[in-house]
Formats: sequence, C-alpha cells, structure tokens
Amino acid sequence: MKKSILFLFLILSTTILSGQNKAVQAIRSDHQPRHYELLKEYVEFLSLPNTMNDPEQLQINARYVVEMMKKRGIGNARLLEADTPGAIPAVYGEVLTPGATRTLIFYAHYDGQPVNPDKWAEGLSPFKPQLATAPLDKGGQLIDFPTASSLPSAKSEFRGTETSSILLQPQWRLYARAAADDKAGVFTILNAYDAIRRTKLAPKINLKFFFEGEEEKGSTNLGEILEKHRDLLKADAWIICDGPMHASGKKQITFGVRGDVNLNLTIFGAKRPLHSGNYGNWAPNPAMKLVRLLATMKDDEGKVLIPGFYDDVVPLSTSERAALAAIPDPAPMMQQELAFAEAENPSLSFLESIITLPTLNINGIVSANVGKLASNIIPTMATVTLDLRLVKGNDHKRQVQKVVDHIRAQGYYVLDREPTDEERLTHPNIATIRAATGYNAQRTSMDLPISKLVIQAVKATSDQEIVLMPSAGGSLPLYLFEEVLNTPPISVPVVNYDNNQHGENENVQLSFLWDGIETLAAIMLIDFK
Amino acid sequence: MKKSILFLFLILSTTILSGQNKAVQAIRSDHQPRHYELLKEYVEFLSLPNTMNDPEQLQINARYVVEMMKKRGIGNARLLEADTPGAIPAVYGEVLTPGATRTLIFYAHYDGQPVNPDKWAEGLSPFKPQLATAPLDKGGQLIDFPTASSLPSAKSEFRGTETSSILLQPQWRLYARAAADDKAGVFTILNAYDAIRRTKLAPKINLKFFFEGEEEKGSTNLGEILEKHRDLLKADAWIICDGPMHASGKKQITFGVRGDVNLNLTIFGAKRPLHSGNYGNWAPNPAMKLVRLLATMKDDEGKVLIPGFYDDVVPLSTSERAALAAIPDPAPMMQQELAFAEAENPSLSFLESIITLPTLNINGIVSANVGKLASNIIPTMATVTLDLRLVKGNDHKRQVQKVVDHIRAQGYYVLDREPTDEERLTHPNIATIRAATGYNAQRTSMDLPISKLVIQAVKATSDQEIVLMPSAGGSLPLYLFEEVLNTPPISVPVVNYDNNQHGENENVQLSFLWDGIETLAAIMLIDFK
Repeated sequence: MKKSILFLFLILSTTILSGQNKAVQAIRSDHQPRHYELLKEYVEFLSLPNTMNDPEQLQINARYVVEMMKKRGIGNARLLEADTPGAIPAVYGEVLTPGATRTLIFYAHYDGQPVNPDKWAEGLSPFKPQLATAPLDKGGQLIDFPTASSLPSAKSEFRGTETSSILLQPQWRLYARAAADDKAGVFTILNAYDAIRRTKLAPKINLKFFFEGEEEKGSTNLGEILEKHRDLLKADAWIICDGPMHASGKKQITFGVRGDVNLNLTIFGAKRPLHSGNYGNWAPNPAMKLVRLLATMKDDEGKVLIPGFYDDVVPLSTSERAALAAIPDPAPMMQQELAFAEAENPSLSFLESIITLPTLNINGIVSANVGKLASNIIPTMATVTLDLRLVKGNDHKRQVQKVVDHIRAQGYYVLDREPTDEERLTHPNIATIRAATGYNAQRTSMDLPISKLVIQAVKATSDQEIVLMPSAGGSLPLYLFEEVLNTPPISVPVVNYDNNQHGENENVQLSFLWDGIETLAAIMLIDFK
Repeated sequence: MKKSILFLFLILSTTILSGQNKAVQAIRSDHQPRHYELLKEYVEFLSLPNTMNDPEQLQINARYVVEMMKKRGIGNARLLEADTPGAIPAVYGEVLTPGATRTLIFYAHYDGQPVNPDKWAEGLSPFKPQLATAPLDKGGQLIDFPTASSLPSAKSEFRGTETSSILLQPQWRLYARAAADDKAGVFTILNAYDAIRRTKLAPKINLKFFFEGEEEKGSTNLGEILEKHRDLLKADAWIICDGPMHASGKKQITFGVRGDVNLNLTIFGAKRPLHSGNYGNWAPNPAMKLVRLLATMKDDEGKVLIPGFYDDVVPLSTSERAALAAIPDPAPMMQQELAFAEAENPSLSFLESIITLPTLNINGIVSANVGKLASNIIPTMATVTLDLRLVKGNDHKRQVQKVVDHIRAQGYYVLDREPTDEERLTHPNIATIRAATGYNAQRTSMDLPISKLVIQAVKATSDQEIVLMPSAGGSLPLYLFEEVLNTPPISVPVVNYDNNQHGENENVQLSFLWDGIETLAAIMLIDFK
C-alpha cells in the first residue's frame, strides 16, 4: 500500500516535467532502478585508499577509473602522464560525436585529503564506506549495507523498477574519505554519460573526461599535463565537478574559485625539552613566541593585519554583485547547525566573507602535548600550518611573501630549513617557513554564451531556482585552464554542503549523487545551435 | 698498566681525605666494587613502567620498593595507604637506633611523568633502560650492557675491587623514564643506607624512609597520608632527594621549592571541522582565538600581564639573597648547550628567573594537525596546557583564579565542562578551563641548626664548594611537611642537571648515582650532639 503510493508519486512527479525536460525524465527513469548496483560500485571505488601523499594508492585509483570508463564504452581511456618524475597521472577518456564542432570536457579529481582514523567517529573507518540513516552528529545511526537478497527486487512486483531507490533512502549518508571530495565527481560524471548511453540519447557535442590525481596537493603538475596534452584536451569549456552545493540544497553553478597556498611555520626554543620548573621564566618558550607572533596577524574582527594583505583584490563586477545579492543568506541556518554564536567578521555576509576576500586560516597548531599527554616542560618547537585562500588579483607567491615580510618585521630571522646551532645562538627569534606550491584564483564571466547554455541546462533539471555563484570559497587550480588552454572553466558541484570534506567523518547524501547524475547528463546534452 | 695507574689514583684520592671523612671513605670503598651489581638492580627497577596515570603500574613499583628495603634489612617496610579510594600508597621503612632522640626521614618518589615513546630518540624506549657513552645529543653512542662475564672481576687481579667501576665509565648515561626523576632518589637513599649497614658504621639517629607514588600528579593525597601516619612519620627534618643538582656539577642543598598548578584551557569553534575555503573568513577559528587570548598573557620580555600575577610574592630574605649572590651564574654555559640566543627575560639572572617569580608556561598547545598531517580545515577546538609555578606567598587557587578572571575579562564565557549547543549559540567566546590540584611553594630557613648540620655533612663528601640554594625552580609539595607535620624539609638533589627530566630521552649520568650514595650516607651519619 505504502509502496504503491510512492510509485504513484514517482509517476506524477515525472509527468509534470515540461517537454524540454523529456531527456531528464529518461535519465531519471534509467538511474532510479539501478541505485543499489550504482552504490555497490561506488563503495568499491571508495574502498581504495587515495590519500594525496601515497603515489601507489593513487596509481591504483587511476587504473580503477580507466576501467570504469572502459565498462561504459568511453573511448581512448588512458592515463595522461606528466614528464616530471613522481607526478601522478590524470585519467582521460572521450566520446566523439560525428560532425560535432563543439566540445565540453568534464573534470573531477580522484585523490583525497590525508586521514587521521583516530579522529573519525566510532564505527567509521576512512576507507571502509559505511551507510548511516542521517548525519551522525544529528542522530544518524550506522546501518549495514542491504544485500542483494534483502532487496524486494528479487521477490516483489517492483522488480527492476523503483525497488532499490525505495530501499536506499535518499536522505541516507555514505561515510568515507573522498565520498564527497571528489570521487563523487568521478562517479556522477561517468554515470551521467552511462545513463545517456543506456537511454540512447544523442549528444550533439563531443564529450571529454579528465580526472586529476593531484588536486589536494595543489595540482602541482596539472599545468604540465595540460600543456603536454593540449591538443587532446581542446574544448569550448571545462565543466568542473568538485566542491559542495549551496547550503539550501538548491542546484548551483559556480563561475570561479579562490586560489590557495599553504605554509608551515616553526618557531624554535632550546634544543631539548626543559623542565618547566627548573627552567621556567628563563628558557624561551617557542609556543608562547608562536602565539604572540600569530596574534599580530589578525584583529578581533577577523581582519588580517599583515601589511598589504588586501591590496591586490579585484572587486566583483556589477553583474557578479547582482548574482550575489540574489542568493539567500545561508548563514543563520548554517550557524544554527554548526552551533556558534558569531561569525569571524560579523560585519560581512557569509558570501562576502568567502568570495570577496583572501584568508589567513590556522589549519592546525602543535607544540608538545596537551591534557593527559602533557608534561611540565618547555617545548623545543612550535609549528603552525597556515592556509591562505586567494581571490582574483592576489598572486600566491606575493601573498606568501607578505606573510614572510611581516614575520621578519616582528624581529624574526627567517629560514626555509632548520636552524644551525650557530644560528640558534645568534638569533633570539628564528622562524622556519616552508611554503607549499600554491595557485591563484580564477573567475569566468557569467555572460559568455557557454555560461548561459550551462545555466539553461541545469535549470531544466530542477523545479527550484538555481544558485549562480560568481566564485566559490574553495579552491581549484582553475586559472590553469584559462592560462594554459585559454578555455573557460565553469563549476557544477553536486554534493551536499555538510559533507565534512577534508576533515574526519566525510560523507555524501545519496540523493545528491542521483541528482548529480541528472545535472551532468543535462549538460552533456547541451546543443550549441 | 693503565688499570694499575687508575687503581693507584683511587688509593691516593681516598687517602687525602681528612679524618672527619673516614666514614665517607668507607662508604666509597664499599660501593665502588659493586657498581655493576647496583646498576643491574637499578635497570630492573627502571624497567617497571611507572607513569603517573596508571595505578596498576604504580602498585607494582611500590611493592618492588618494599622488597628493596627488606633486602637491606630496613625495618617495618610497608605501604602507607590513604583513605581516599584510588590513592596510590607511599612506601615506608625505618631503622631505629637504640637511645637515639633525633630522627631524619628521607623522601623520594617512585612515580614518573607520562611518556610518548614516538618522541624518544631512535634505539631508546622509555622502559627499556639503555646505556650510552655520553648524552645522545652530544655524540653519545648507545652501548650494550656489559654482561657479568665480560667483567674482568671473574678473571683478573681486580676481582671484587674496582673492576666494575672501571668497566662502567662514570660519564656514561643511563636512559629511561624516571632514571633521574625520581627513581634515582629511591635508589641512592636505599643504597646509602645499605653501604652504612655493610660497612658497620653506626648511625647516631633514627632513619626513616618515605617514598611517594603521586608526586608527578601533584601529590594529591600526600597531605592525607602524612596526617594519617603522623606519629610514624615524626622526625626532626625531611631530607628530600629529588630534582637536579647545580649545572656546574657541584653538590647542592636546596631549602625550598616553587609550588605548581596546571590548567587545561580549550576554546571552541564550529561543532564540526569545516573546509577552510568554503567557510574561511566566516566560521570562527578556535586556534586563532586561543593564540590571541594567550598573547594577552605575556609581554615580549616574558612578563606576565595578567592583573595581580606578581602581587603575592614574598621577596627573598637578606641571607637568601646573599646565598644566591654566591652562586656562579650557570646561564652562559647552559645557554650554549641548549643553543638559544636570549633568555625569556634578559634583564633577570637565571636564578632570579627561576627562584623569585611565579611562571606562566605553555606546556603544550594542540589544535588539529600540522605539516603532512594537516588538512585545509577550520578546527573545531584548540587546547593549551598551562603550567603555573608558584613562589612563596602565592596561593595556588588564587593564582588560577587570576588566570580565569583575566580570560573572563577578555570577553570569554568560562566553563569547567564542554559547552552545550545552547551555550555555543549564545556566547561567541567560550573557554573551558579545568585546573588540576596544585600546591604552594615552601622555604626552610638556612639558619636552623639542622640546616647547618646538613650543610656540614654534605661538605665533608666533596672537595668542591657546596651550592646553597634558597629555593629550587622545580616543585614538590614540601609545604605539606611544614603545615601538616610542622617539620622542615631540606632538599639534597643527586642527579645531573641535563637529565631531560619530564621530557623524552630522560637520563642519569652514572657518576651522579655513586656520588649521591656518599652524600646521603653522610647525612644519615649526622650527629646532633
């Protein structure tokens, strides 16, 4: 009885789609009965560890993605290597349409952030994907994967139709490293094409696929790979599938990203840990030096005090500002869920905060131990990892240099390696700063023809308003597509915003995977004429 | 040939001792041929893990110490329990001298600081004692323990005399947790008495022994144990054997200690870790809040800025000041070895720094991860462990309260537990502060008769000047002996100052163990008449 009502509802909800949306309806009818099978493959994919610092793990993932493409009849599936030794290959594939003059290339990345399994919730393990009825921090319960035989498909009237989508509730969460960031991109892109192929819908354009393996590391060799394979990668636009959707759950298109660069800063004290009683007040404490140094960098409204930090910022255009104004402010809802009383800079809106300004964020800070592991000592060193997000106009090297100059101006002798004993004995304040390779921000104009076509395609997959975002807060090396290939990138994220991406307990809500397949398929079916 | 010269030297060096020092000479002749055997027992003792938070480990150590006493014929050897459930017992023993009216009681502790084995040098393990030819950070090499058969005692003319002291070089280091702090105290006290017994020297006073098991935790139940067993523990003075000797290597008597209290302070951000791009500049960063808060606590000359922090300090007396002035400043030598360019407060001498002022020291600070383990996130919390050393006049509760009041004055809502969601949503700045039990400083007058007798006894064991220290920088709950038992404590430390006590790579130099036996035996032989 209950199932019949749901079935009826599904029929009704598809019939109310307009003619233009026939293709979307076909895609939906194709993926709905296959959710169980799709999820099974995804769980297998997520079970392959993919931490950014482990080349061997990443190679295994790359080969797995090649196989995923071959299974779907995607042509020319292969690894794209860089010449740089140790570089992790990208994965490429293509579906060429006879007579087509236009091409879209779809991007996602298969590498993931490092994991600290001890920090994950009980019952979770980063590379043993696990279903839950809801987010664990909102009362969700872990559940076993339904087995094929527990599905009614084998025994009921729903066989081969909506069965699996009934059993796999859309609001369920799948917990694993990269479940959201960004194997979800690989998964939805490849299954969007697969649904097109299965339903025999005919793309009017060439489709290319490009999956990177070094995104979390800062895409160190992406420029080289693009350069080396520039003919193969010719396209009218890159469709980037990464990062979270709008907090409201509305579908979203994003036209830019912030840039990013990280640095590690270590301050040194005595060469060995000292008893805090026998040496306390005399031996310098590197943790106290570090906190005093970091405190000079921000005021109590979150404004960075490093000279020139905001000088290079290119302000939003009028149309970008208008798009921003049209987006409802998600801050109150998010703040409630995240449980904090005040934003870092209460005078800025959420979007202004994350789109219009560069950041200086403490990713982590460690000196000796705290709590039960703490000893009564003066530590030998204190380290902070800083994350600098960049907006259009910032240059990543220039931004790091501002931080270095500021540290120097506080009286620090700055090195890019450990100090020698002689240096320790000569300079009271020594800072070792190691900056990772970074990259700049990028913004594509929302007024390009391809921008408008993508907006139209995504709109066709949803009854709701589409959120048009001039830039994301997050970072991808999208400036490379413009600089190396002269091709505009446009981002179409598919995963829920509360996915704990980069932290512990990363997860994706299942419904976002299925919706993502529809969104990406609609873009693949764009007709430029 | 070489051995013969050394043997001759030993004979000469003992014969130049004055008549008053005959007893010391006898003690030396007794312990010298037994170094190998003494060290074997000490290694066994150090192999028993004794971390302060593990009651089971500590009970095993306590029983081991009882057995060490019984082996040496010490009477009434037993555990002294507190009534408080979970309290770790002290270990007691006594040697009563017929007709004696005076009593000295000797104190050390058998518990140790927590260990983080990952931080110990390669080849070391906190509870697998290991010999090295010199400190490892000064080119020392790990060496295997000599086996009994490798000793010439079994086959040469040195059998049963100096052999073991020849093979066990006095400058060697023994690495293990508690090797210096403070199983060295237990070891030297019990072997000092053993040497007296073996040489049939007759103490003129009663000797009592008291070994605590909760010192590193702040001696939580020591007051109760003293109170409960006050009759048993009657004495004219407590001789405290803990902490390091003077950096010059000179023998030292210390007449006071700083007090100590620890607190853990945690600052909270969003309830889950957030992507630093998608939320950076908007979500509050608890690590940045914490560093800004800590930076308000100290100026760049190490002066604590918390209101009233130095108000209660009782200045040194004229005679204490004179004693201080007589001690050569160890700072230049130590600074060279520790390799830093400037003391925290360059306008104070080393001794002024550690004796005359309370401290506010960062023992450790942790928020998320750094370096290769770092993720691009905004952490959920940031924690610091602070150590407050106290001087005479400070009250530990009052001192903690000053810190709490200061944090409150910076706009923090202060709790002693995790905040609720409602509190998180109401208060922008939340600090959870948990203070451990602390204790106050203590100072015994250097002009008491017993003070003078101890000075005289120690002087008799050394050709060098004795360092008389009005107070140590380190902490012991010595105020309890005065307050509960009305008995003055006097400290006679025996271990080398560069022992890494409390940190990783803790060690003791062998010669300090042998010298300590002589020092303590001399005190046990004090004659009050």
